[in-house]
Amino acid sequence: MRRMYAADVLESDAPKVLVRGWVHNINRVGKIAFVQLRDRTGIIQVVADDDMVGDLRLEMSIEAVGDRVVNDKAPSGVEIHACTVRILGTVYYEMLPFEINKRSIKASLETQLDHRTVSLRPVKNRAIFKVQQEIEEAFRNYLKENGFTQVHTPKIISSATEGGSEMFTVDFFGKRAFLAQSPQFYKQMMVGAGFERVFEVGHAYRAELHNTWRHLGEYVSMDVEMGFIESYEDLVALEEGYISYLFRHLRSACAAELEMFGVSLPVSVEIPRIPLAEAQRIVLEKYGKRSPLSGLDAEGEKLFSEHMQNEYGTDFVFLTKYPTSKRPMYTMPDPEDPGLTQSFDLIYKGLEITTGSQRIHDYEMLRQNIIKFGLDPECFSFYLESFRYGMPPHGGFAIGLERLTMKLLGLDNIREAALFPRDIKRLEP
Amino acid sequence: MRRMYAADVLESDAPKVLVRGWVHNINRVGKIAFVQLRDRTGIIQVVADDDMVGDLRLEMSIEAVGDRVVNDKAPSGVEIHACTVRILGTVYYEMLPFEINKRSIKASLETQLDHRTVSLRPVKNRAIFKVQQEIEEAFRNYLKENGFTQVHTPKIISSATEGGSEMFTVDFFGKRAFLAQSPQFYKQMMVGAGFERVFEVGHAYRAELHNTWRHLGEYVSMDVEMGFIESYEDLVALEEGYISYLFRHLRSACAAELEMFGVSLPVSVEIPRIPLAEAQRIVLEKYGKRSPLSGLDAEGEKLFSEHMQNEYGTDFVFLTKYPTSKRPMYTMPDPEDPGLTQSFDLIYKGLEITTGSQRIHDYEMLRQNIIKFGLDPECFSFYLESFRYGMPPHGGFAIGLERLTMKLLGLDNIREAALFPRDIKRLEP
Repeated sequence: MRRMYAADVLESDAPKVLVRGWVHNINRVGKIAFVQLRDRTGIIQVVADDDMVGDLRLEMSIEAVGDRVVNDKAPSGVEIHACTVRILGTVYYEMLPFEINKRSIKASLETQLDHRTVSLRPVKNRAIFKVQQEIEEAFRNYLKENGFTQVHTPKIISSATEGGSEMFTVDFFGKRAFLAQSPQFYKQMMVGAGFERVFEVGHAYRAELHNTWRHLGEYVSMDVEMGFIESYEDLVALEEGYISYLFRHLRSACAAELEMFGVSLPVSVEIPRIPLAEAQRIVLEKYGKRSPLSGLDAEGEKLFSEHMQNEYGTDFVFLTKYPTSKRPMYTMPDPEDPGLTQSFDLIYKGLEITTGSQRIHDYEMLRQNIIKFGLDPECFSFYLESFRYGMPPHGGFAIGLERLTMKLLGLDNIREAALFPRDIKRLEP
Repeated sequence: MRRMYAADVLESDAPKVLVRGWVHNINRVGKIAFVQLRDRTGIIQVVADDDMVGDLRLEMSIEAVGDRVVNDKAPSGVEIHACTVRILGTVYYEMLPFEINKRSIKASLETQLDHRTVSLRPVKNRAIFKVQQEIEEAFRNYLKENGFTQVHTPKIISSATEGGSEMFTVDFFGKRAFLAQSPQFYKQMMVGAGFERVFEVGHAYRAELHNTWRHLGEYVSMDVEMGFIESYEDLVALEEGYISYLFRHLRSACAAELEMFGVSLPVSVEIPRIPLAEAQRIVLEKYGKRSPLSGLDAEGEKLFSEHMQNEYGTDFVFLTKYPTSKRPMYTMPDPEDPGLTQSFDLIYKGLEITTGSQRIHDYEMLRQNIIKFGLDPECFSFYLESFRYGMPPHGGFAIGLERLTMKLLGLDNIREAALFPRDIKRLEP
């Protein structure tokens, strides 16, 4: 007899069914036991004689075979009257680390993360990762439709991309190497190698010394790089197109999950572009808050998002034209004001989720800029070398997958959007 | 005027077009220059007055605007009579590291890898990665259709998965950590956490001390783990289904690329299952070659594949029932012979591309097995802990993406199937 999923039992008209899953709840009433069986698709009630399920404990994995019965009093309107119940995987605990069959888990996030294989069992906690998978799927599909090639670039690298700090070091056959902070150099090189348009979904590493709600030591970066652009505005348009595409995709692929989180997504997304200096001025004049030269700080991002929401009803805003001194050495200067760059951030609900820019594509200009930044061109030799062979105008951006997931679903902490988060305090599980 | 790709110029009926790409070749005949312009879709001939392209050198990136003219003598039957040619990205070299506009590159693989952004420019070298992308795409689509959830699991981990050797160490905020050899523990834990069926496409790391044609220090592993299985045969059937799905997908998505490599893929794939001991016997009796207890060695895999090709006309064979002592501690013993395991390898054209097995799902049995293997359960505490809560019968396998790509296209060295390979001698580019 073939296994049937809980969700399919509801739709089915089979008289007899076989289901498998975990014991979500047991309710014994006289000689009858009501077992809530949970599988990856949902929960179904199994009604059994008490002596048939005498051994059952919460979270055992079991198999039940029985008659499918429509019953208005059953939680889902359908239940299974079991003729056999069999334990597939038993349990070894005195008490569960926390209850997972109540409306919510009453345990700190840290405790939940310590017991990740238990805290992910409630359907809402797993729903986060269904949405995350579809965010990534939409990214991939959107870019493929626009002629991009997916690449995998190395995470063990010989030199620091964006500056030497905040990098994890690796012992690579006795040589000192680093974990890549981003695929920056490699995605640019792949544009030059003739792919023209590439994307990557892969891990990136930041040895963040501060433990905040929005930082991870290891995260998934969705990276884009595009050649033969006219200006950074091509990139801004590409990302705006992705956000609209994503929302359309999620409204159909994740309707149930979005409802669980009380999220409704707009049908079309037009994102204002505002120069950083203008945003800084507004934050100062409206909220009396000074910003650092480099951009908005975390509080500034929140205040400016509030302003954009109040004035324009948008959750998103592109901040553009960051100062040269505060962007990496490969960033293309603004032709009208060399103190500024052709760069942008995307702020979503008060949090930066993207950094992007047009890059310098001329070998000599890049070499000079590396020197101007006080760096040694020798340290970037293989990267620089690839600019000798006709690198076209290009640029790109990166989206933090966990950040986008967190903000989209209104989660409080980025760790909720990572299966096994890594930070200064956490290397396990 | 919008840019048009080389391939689209052939199909188009626009009288005037704008193209961008790299100077693949220049041929000057009197006052006329014939420029082969290469973009990500192909090559188109641009005909220009010699004085218009006096500065042009090979591999510059350029833009040309001109009339689209059908001409039987042009290499693709269509050419562009340029009115303007503009340099977008110039070059800084005396000589290219090797010629890339001839039938093949005349340079060693090592030299080609040293100049990866040059060696990838010929269309055939980039085609490898188009096929690779589609191998991955088919994997993802096939598994999604079968109810699998994509996961991202950590690559920085606290303990060795398959034994302590061959691991890269990382300085994780002053703690000694490792780069994951596989997502083994985590994918099993995600089955137990209620996802039931998960897959991951991500980097895996092996500090291989020997430099061979089939090993990489960093590679892409396509991992699967499936809960509520009946036996390891469910896994073998799942992978067999993938191979058929993949070949169907590639025949339509990569017809041109397969032709470039002279590859034709069978319409349906049925893969024989043969116990390891039987394969070892055949290799000994037919070829006089002894095998190690653990399986077939590299030469044995080749010989046995030859046998399977000659006798059954198949490129694939599943070897099953490896000895207990030679499989990891989490492998489920064979119920009929405890000296054997419920495990398998998939051999493709003489090379192992997959290892898989049913896993032990009972907490006590796993703990005992860890001890039996001479390991300390304390070192696997978070992994073991997750088996306390009703782990169902489960198992999985992993496919090496670069290995599959290499064998499918008939490449000689796995490094050709990696954009930026990492091995004991190579940390750059």
